[in-house]
Amino acid sequence: MQLGMIGLGRMGANIVRRIVRDGHTAVGYERHPGPIADLEAEMPGQFRGTTDLADFVGMLEVPRVVWVMIPAGATGAVIDELTPLLEPGDIIIDGGNSRYHEDIKRAKALEPTGIHYLDIGTSGGVFGLQRGFCLMIGGNREDVDYLAPLLSSIAPGYESGVRTPGRTGEPTEFEQGYLLCGPHGAGHFVKMVHNGIEYGAMGAYAEGLNILAHADAGREYVDGEHSAEETPMENPEYYMYDLDIPAITEVWRRGSVVASWLLDLTAAALVADPNLDSYSGRVSDSGEGRWTIEAAIDVGVPVPVLSAALYERFSSRGQALYADKMLSAMRKAFGGHNELPQK
Amino acid sequence: MQLGMIGLGRMGANIVRRIVRDGHTAVGYERHPGPIADLEAEMPGQFRGTTDLADFVGMLEVPRVVWVMIPAGATGAVIDELTPLLEPGDIIIDGGNSRYHEDIKRAKALEPTGIHYLDIGTSGGVFGLQRGFCLMIGGNREDVDYLAPLLSSIAPGYESGVRTPGRTGEPTEFEQGYLLCGPHGAGHFVKMVHNGIEYGAMGAYAEGLNILAHADAGREYVDGEHSAEETPMENPEYYMYDLDIPAITEVWRRGSVVASWLLDLTAAALVADPNLDSYSGRVSDSGEGRWTIEAAIDVGVPVPVLSAALYERFSSRGQALYADKMLSAMRKAFGGHNELPQK
Amino acid sequence: MQLGMIGLGRMGANIVRRIVRDGHTAVGYERHPGPIADLEAEMPGQFRGTTDLADFVGMLEVPRVVWVMIPAGATGAVIDELTPLLEPGDIIIDGGNSRYHEDIKRAKALEPTGIHYLDIGTSGGVFGLQRGFCLMIGGNREDVDYLAPLLSSIAPGYESGVRTPGRTGEPTEFEQGYLLCGPHGAGHFVKMVHNGIEYGAMGAYAEGLNILAHADAGREYVDGEHSAEETPMENPEYYMYDLDIPAITEVWRRGSVVASWLLDLTAAALVADPNLDSYSGRVSDSGEGRWTIEAAIDVGVPVPVLSAALYERFSSRGQALYADKMLSAMRKAFGGHNELPQK
Amino acid sequence: MQLGMIGLGRMGANIVRRIVRDGHTAVGYERHPGPIADLEAEMPGQFRGTTDLADFVGMLEVPRVVWVMIPAGATGAVIDELTPLLEPGDIIIDGGNSRYHEDIKRAKALEPTGIHYLDIGTSGGVFGLQRGFCLMIGGNREDVDYLAPLLSSIAPGYESGVRTPGRTGEPTEFEQGYLLCGPHGAGHFVKMVHNGIEYGAMGAYAEGLNILAHADAGREYVDGEHSAEETPMENPEYYMYDLDIPAITEVWRRGSVVASWLLDLTAAALVADPNLDSYSGRVSDSGEGRWTIEAAIDVGVPVPVLSAALYERFSSRGQALYADKMLSAMRKAFGGHNELPQK
Repeated sequence: MQLGMIGLGRMGANIVRRIVRDGHTAVGYERHPGPIADLEAEMPGQFRGTTDLADFVGMLEVPRVVWVMIPAGATGAVIDELTPLLEPGDIIIDGGNSRYHEDIKRAKALEPTGIHYLDIGTSGGVFGLQRGFCLMIGGNREDVDYLAPLLSSIAPGYESGVRTPGRTGEPTEFEQGYLLCGPHGAGHFVKMVHNGIEYGAMGAYAEGLNILAHADAGREYVDGEHSAEETPMENPEYYMYDLDIPAITEVWRRGSVVASWLLDLTAAALVADPNLDSYSGRVSDSGEGRWTIEAAIDVGVPVPVLSAALYERFSSRGQALYADKMLSAMRKAFGGHNELPQK
Repeated sequence: MQLGMIGLGRMGANIVRRIVRDGHTAVGYERHPGPIADLEAEMPGQFRGTTDLADFVGMLEVPRVVWVMIPAGATGAVIDELTPLLEPGDIIIDGGNSRYHEDIKRAKALEPTGIHYLDIGTSGGVFGLQRGFCLMIGGNREDVDYLAPLLSSIAPGYESGVRTPGRTGEPTEFEQGYLLCGPHGAGHFVKMVHNGIEYGAMGAYAEGLNILAHADAGREYVDGEHSAEETPMENPEYYMYDLDIPAITEVWRRGSVVASWLLDLTAAALVADPNLDSYSGRVSDSGEGRWTIEAAIDVGVPVPVLSAALYERFSSRGQALYADKMLSAMRKAFGGHNELPQK
Repeated sequence: MQLGMIGLGRMGANIVRRIVRDGHTAVGYERHPGPIADLEAEMPGQFRGTTDLADFVGMLEVPRVVWVMIPAGATGAVIDELTPLLEPGDIIIDGGNSRYHEDIKRAKALEPTGIHYLDIGTSGGVFGLQRGFCLMIGGNREDVDYLAPLLSSIAPGYESGVRTPGRTGEPTEFEQGYLLCGPHGAGHFVKMVHNGIEYGAMGAYAEGLNILAHADAGREYVDGEHSAEETPMENPEYYMYDLDIPAITEVWRRGSVVASWLLDLTAAALVADPNLDSYSGRVSDSGEGRWTIEAAIDVGVPVPVLSAALYERFSSRGQALYADKMLSAMRKAFGGHNELPQK
Repeated sequence: MQLGMIGLGRMGANIVRRIVRDGHTAVGYERHPGPIADLEAEMPGQFRGTTDLADFVGMLEVPRVVWVMIPAGATGAVIDELTPLLEPGDIIIDGGNSRYHEDIKRAKALEPTGIHYLDIGTSGGVFGLQRGFCLMIGGNREDVDYLAPLLSSIAPGYESGVRTPGRTGEPTEFEQGYLLCGPHGAGHFVKMVHNGIEYGAMGAYAEGLNILAHADAGREYVDGEHSAEETPMENPEYYMYDLDIPAITEVWRRGSVVASWLLDLTAAALVADPNLDSYSGRVSDSGEGRWTIEAAIDVGVPVPVLSAALYERFSSRGQALYADKMLSAMRKAFGGHNELPQK
């Protein structure tokens, strides 16, 4: 089967590699010729690319399957440019990180054209090539059925995990790593919440490890000087530990309840940089974490863990500064307290 | 009536001033002679002081009433030194910010000596002299009755507030601003929770005002440069406001639901420093905010607002840094994302 | 001066009463004749009303001033109906709880008509008649100047509060209780954040008082039976207090740092129902609390306190149930733990 | 090597089974004879048990190795009873869920007796028998070296996980699944934080899945009746999804960033009970989650995610009820709002 890929960044290229590996072919579009040449050299006869969108469309077998894998901000414009070049029965896939609202609108707008549309939330990060991509799909059943050969090449496959106890019979699609979640937008909706959960789980590890990193606070307290503005430490003797956090993340990978792929990656990051010296602690966030909270609020569901995780990222970038100054100003106003000096 | 005051800092001195103003007399103890001389000059014939604890005890009428108003960390040692100098029937008051656990232990330890003990959580800050102090008391009814003349001079008094609709009859003690909350420790317990609430309310104002301070984020976004690592702003046109925060805090003081004494003080702080330039944003916390959370956890009561307020202070002092670095390390590990550069 | 009021519910009627009290006149529109007759009887010669919108417009002096004070959901339709009946130079005020996005759109849509538009976030609740309403305004300076006689009658006025230390000279508008916050939408934006703060402050009181309500947990623990699934209480002796929460809220009203109008109301509510027996604990939320969080997320500002307060309300309505069941299911899955039985 | 096991519940018995499987022997003590007979039958010649503590001590080879695996509340008393029966050089291990404070005190108390002491936080739950137990150890290096044959039988072993990229050379102890974290208490400290993280990660999944469970809220809203007290839903068309949560947890197990052992268990729980009908949603918590927060507060580290997760459990058990009633009371007081009726 043939796949057209718009955007040959890491994610797009790795999806191409996975399907080509299974005997499929791919056509790529990218504004810059560099990645095209590289991929053509890497997969001779199975991949061809172009920097011209009309050429790209022309190189595709009908019905065309076009997977758009570019930053969310650019997706709309490219699909607008692409649409008039396509025919009824062709399929557009948005595999990027669009907000699912866009999918609902786009699918509706495409309906009169006869062009099919799927949103596919795609998780896997830099490891997708080897592990496969987890695919969360919004759209119609017939399109998923039609694309099954490609989807099963991109997804990790049934053998990638131990079967869940209680499941029997033929492996389902979702046990292979792709799932038609529902109608248009459902794929990006589920992917959005997936990322929200990811934020929360990351926050849980980061906070716990931060406690471990401060397990020597009692020694620091006993050795340090203290302002009367500072809370005295009642039991410094309980915080006299120098813990080896890389080793702890490693031991937790074996047999503990918090074993996870995120923990595997954390352990790996700590091998590379045991004290995290290469990081400044300014943590970015992408749209999904924010949209998850907004969705929760829209449906009236409490998400304190997920929100706390998002806010931790905002704070890490200095976004609480005005609030903090205000707190200091209030403390001074009612208690005459001066701020602690900068350390 | 006569009051002995140990500790002549702002709080202790102002309590003395309030009772003297009502015709009572006071004896003060303080390690440094400076404040003693000042207060003697200020209240001739009504206040005498000494730097010697035994002298202090000797200057007190029997039964002695000794109010200890010093930092929580020093209170235990002073009471230990004071106790053997007192007689059965004398009264010790801890008016500082001790943890109520200490009161329970101390009252038990004093029981065999016949010395009475009261814990009085005292709120009022730098404005206590003019507004009066709110007194939250733990101990015995007879001691509160005996001390009523002093307590009612220290407290704001019935006229300080509009009577709550529905209350009738003689004004109660608590409508005068002092309350026997319960047995030993109950005063500091209630004061502790009071401070926990204060943290939460302060956090609410600070966070809300921080949103107002960022109401121009859309303009900054439109004018700025953006990394692909950054969430694009969907509706910058909604965030084009330059708000006058001092004026807003002022207008809220009149008729709004969030009118409060904290807001009065905030408005005053913003008159003095409209952009909060004199603050760095490193917010201190004292024990009560922490103990409140621990009490809530002990009794199994959820306190997300109060905890968030406390953690905001920890974060303001850089205590999340390791966690934030860890988050950046994880993001890099699974997504290949680089950190945003420092601005 | 004359005011046209659309919507004669409690808020609308009380605004009318305040201006009439100052010698202004009012015309009212309301679908049901009942309130009109009542208000006409109450304010003979100063108030007239109608159930016909065209009549209403006809009864107004030019330039017409129309204040719309109806539920946010109905505001758009009424203004759409009203607009063609008005002339250039007339003024529409949305005094309800619209989302400020609507104001921005509406002001833009009205621009070609020459009709002026103001959004006025109005706080004061059921006490607005006596205390005055706090008015947060978005729009143009000339309209605010023109409306000054009405606005100053509706607002609490300068004398309603003690002047903030440091302020000098002529009282400003905002010291009278109304403020032009900025261009269209700014009024409802500031009102929205005001309500977000209100949620946070309410949450702070509620959580703190909840700790007080559980201060006897140690006695309950000692007297109770315990499942091995339950955390044992380490120090039940610290939680043996029976606290009088109505009295505590009352004493805090005098001299404490947490004194506020919300606390005044809380004390009053506890006089009427000391054990809160008339409440089920299902707490509603209106749009502003939600929109505040969404605005904070849009501008990337951490609001953990305000979010926690909102989520507390969601949870109170059972919206966490599925999440809680999931937690129980996980605990059973990895630890073999059975759920605690319903008490 | 021989191990003495006090407590033959699931955890204790499974530890015994793992060492016996590797050719070691075990002696067990348990108050009830039932489990002893069962285990003797299961492991003839390799396991013997007794209901008499002195007999138990007598059956052990010198130096005795005694692993105490009973509920935290009972551990202290058993060790007190055991200690006088032991000799210098014997080793006591607390493998249960004691608070690490106890370990520090106990190790100090045992020092004069010459009895060695180790605290071993043990994770693995009901799957420990097959997966092995993750062992977090506090104590001395020589004791860990001496016990290595047993510890490596109990732990999952090096082969249980893929080696972390960047690690080279001989597998370390912690890559086998056991780690000497530091001096006395360090094992239970690390285990405590491990559980804190577990709470946070569980909360993240539960909240995210709860959003998915409410993805049909728009349909419910459109079909339902609405009180004016309720926030209207702005975009019900965005919440029209019926999502298959068991399938979603399954697809996430393959290739996604949130793959974890907790997710594996969640997927399994949803196979067994797809709608969670067998759960009431009253979620228990054990001490570690609480102690984690207290430790974070002691060292001044913000843990909003972990706290939110703990509070979610408190709330699930109705512990916010008084706070929620208070919020309703306040809303009624200032806004005249009535509570929504119970659904």
